[in-house]
Amino acid sequence: MKDRILIKELSAYIGKSVRIAGWIHSTRKQGTLCFLLVRDRSGIAQVTASGKDIADYGIRNETVVLITGEVIEDERAKTGVEIKLEGISVLSRPQKKLPILVNEKAVYQKLELETILNNRVLSLRNPKRNLIFRLQADIIDAFHTYFRDHGFTEVTTPKIIASGTEGGTQLFSVDYFDKPAYLAQSPQFYKQMLVGAGYERVFEVGHVYRAEIHNTSRHLNEYVSLDYEMGFIQNEHDVMDTEEDFLFRLIERITKDSGHILEEYGTTLETPKKIPRVPLKDACGILEKEYGRKMKTLDLDPVGEKLICEWAKKEYESDFIFLTDYPRSKRPVYTMPNEDDPEFTRSFDLLFRGLEITTGGQRIHEYDMLVEAFRERGLEPEDFDYYIESFAYGMPPHGGLAIGLERLTCQILGLSNVREGSIFPRDRSRISP
Amino acid sequence: MKDRILIKELSAYIGKSVRIAGWIHSTRKQGTLCFLLVRDRSGIAQVTASGKDIADYGIRNETVVLITGEVIEDERAKTGVEIKLEGISVLSRPQKKLPILVNEKAVYQKLELETILNNRVLSLRNPKRNLIFRLQADIIDAFHTYFRDHGFTEVTTPKIIASGTEGGTQLFSVDYFDKPAYLAQSPQFYKQMLVGAGYERVFEVGHVYRAEIHNTSRHLNEYVSLDYEMGFIQNEHDVMDTEEDFLFRLIERITKDSGHILEEYGTTLETPKKIPRVPLKDACGILEKEYGRKMKTLDLDPVGEKLICEWAKKEYESDFIFLTDYPRSKRPVYTMPNEDDPEFTRSFDLLFRGLEITTGGQRIHEYDMLVEAFRERGLEPEDFDYYIESFAYGMPPHGGLAIGLERLTCQILGLSNVREGSIFPRDRSRISP
Repeated sequence: MKDRILIKELSAYIGKSVRIAGWIHSTRKQGTLCFLLVRDRSGIAQVTASGKDIADYGIRNETVVLITGEVIEDERAKTGVEIKLEGISVLSRPQKKLPILVNEKAVYQKLELETILNNRVLSLRNPKRNLIFRLQADIIDAFHTYFRDHGFTEVTTPKIIASGTEGGTQLFSVDYFDKPAYLAQSPQFYKQMLVGAGYERVFEVGHVYRAEIHNTSRHLNEYVSLDYEMGFIQNEHDVMDTEEDFLFRLIERITKDSGHILEEYGTTLETPKKIPRVPLKDACGILEKEYGRKMKTLDLDPVGEKLICEWAKKEYESDFIFLTDYPRSKRPVYTMPNEDDPEFTRSFDLLFRGLEITTGGQRIHEYDMLVEAFRERGLEPEDFDYYIESFAYGMPPHGGLAIGLERLTCQILGLSNVREGSIFPRDRSRISP
Repeated sequence: MKDRILIKELSAYIGKSVRIAGWIHSTRKQGTLCFLLVRDRSGIAQVTASGKDIADYGIRNETVVLITGEVIEDERAKTGVEIKLEGISVLSRPQKKLPILVNEKAVYQKLELETILNNRVLSLRNPKRNLIFRLQADIIDAFHTYFRDHGFTEVTTPKIIASGTEGGTQLFSVDYFDKPAYLAQSPQFYKQMLVGAGYERVFEVGHVYRAEIHNTSRHLNEYVSLDYEMGFIQNEHDVMDTEEDFLFRLIERITKDSGHILEEYGTTLETPKKIPRVPLKDACGILEKEYGRKMKTLDLDPVGEKLICEWAKKEYESDFIFLTDYPRSKRPVYTMPNEDDPEFTRSFDLLFRGLEITTGGQRIHEYDMLVEAFRERGLEPEDFDYYIESFAYGMPPHGGLAIGLERLTCQILGLSNVREGSIFPRDRSRISP
């Protein structure tokens, strides 16, 4: 719209007549005066008018309006300015009663998650909730920028695939011209192949699909995975070094550019000196010794994840901890075994404030070892030949990882259910809106 | 790998001993000397050695090696330097005979498309073909950067959906916990909803799925769509203005940063003064008058698209042309009709060098008009309530478009089949690799 300015720009126009556009956030009458709060993507402005002036417009909350008026300095207003109404035109009128309030401060706490998600468009108009996905966009941008700056090529790999990365479990099937096909659980095979295709370092921001029957606060059946894969590594520590450096830059960036979002959510981010790297076996020992909690197998349950993060915070002042050296039985078939103790692997998880947000490691790059690894798992190498064959023609040592975007978003802001970190989440019972 | 430097950095190390790593691109013996070309992600370097030195290593093309040697100035080499071999270690050996050559200059022309795609990892090691997806990554980055800089929020919308944007046609179905579900044909509904959720301006780089039975050089069944949607527009010309400005910045950027890729493909990009905007009806008239080609209906066939682009080049020195004012019957249900002539719409296509790369327009933002539009098409508004309901609470005038990433890539480089612009293309017969 011609000459429309954003609300955040108003203070540069004091004494001038301007046009703004947005939604009516709230209205208030006081004697013969009327105060409208108008909300656009950049903020909220107060508009003052005589009650008579606006009576004819049938304005109510969430009406979309175009307003002309003079910008007046007003120290009482949060933005330092308000607008004296000159003209108003209605661009779009709500046709129904609002099922939820947009403008209530406490709305965030009071609504049930189901109500928030069922009314996603309205619930996201709430200024505080709206910020979640601005932060998420900043995370994507930080990831994109960091990896481009470090010589990684952005790739887009197919999500319709002929076989899963781990055989047929937990895959959604697609009717693909009457052929069997599936939705990709991860870009794993393709990003490795692209390392071998000469790009050496690739990253991808893309959807992944898990047909998991879990219905927990930590699982989504469709989520966004921040993936990278890098060739010519020494071992898995190169991959962890890269993630650590990225996370430190991310913290710096968010604190600098999105500090107001952290503030709104009552949180801060601190950069530890170093993210501790603790072998899983040692972590289980710490849980037993320090917290009297014995794990049944060599793995951490959700409570164990929380406790080991507490420990990392106490011992290393770090909200993050790498758990390393997972046993082979717990890791995917392509994971590089540790040559000194082949029951263990060159793999790791990263936990952040009590939740796993990354799984990664070094991968097998030798053809014979890979074929053998598939066989040992009872998988037919022939079923994965499009992947395994690419290892027959010279593949550098490589590794990588994936970060769950929604989980990272939630852990930064302190949201307790991963669905709040997904714009339109998909779980066992929800495919709408 | 510690101390590894990239081949493009060699000239800064003249007289020093360095480590490089990569693939053996080719080997050549000349008397007692041996010349290896080594390829990494940044370029190709010549390494000289005595034949005796390397005989023991069983090196052949595509062996992955780590090389130490002294950097010597050499004016004959393309990079101005070569390496005198000091040590070599093999990181990975090809286990099979290469099914295609990687290093042949003419390889690009000689191979059949099927061979290229069946051997994707090897075919992408060819330096010229490898550049295609470096350019594609630059396009994504340019899109990402432009729209972030212009106040757009990046979003990730679900690809598993309950109903298509146009009813049930051309949708892939997914078995979603025994519920019917589909793969999204476009993020259309969701990006509109997010405009209305207060973001006003959103963009997305994501996969879309079309179960089209076409098997042409222009169609993929899974492709990457560069989408944006913007609120508070005057009409569809605001959307075109934005795309025009983006494309001009893209041309500037590619010419500056990726000029070597254009050069390798023997092409250039020119910024027109202005992209012509021609109503579809007039375009059909031009085809008939100037080229004697009469369209059967008010639409352009592939030959018509090529001819109207020729005309735009001749008349406006532009490789691009907007075709506007499509009839309502040819456009999706949510397209804004033209108030002066409701048989036509506020919509457009963008053609580039003979191929449609964009469809866009203004959308209906009034609830009643939208409900009516669905009914007129014989669609039940109730089946789309998660979308239509969001128009009941105040939606600004808005519009947007989608650019096909693979088509744009191909048209820039002059590739004749859209599959060449997809890393791992999916078509009716191909879901592998």
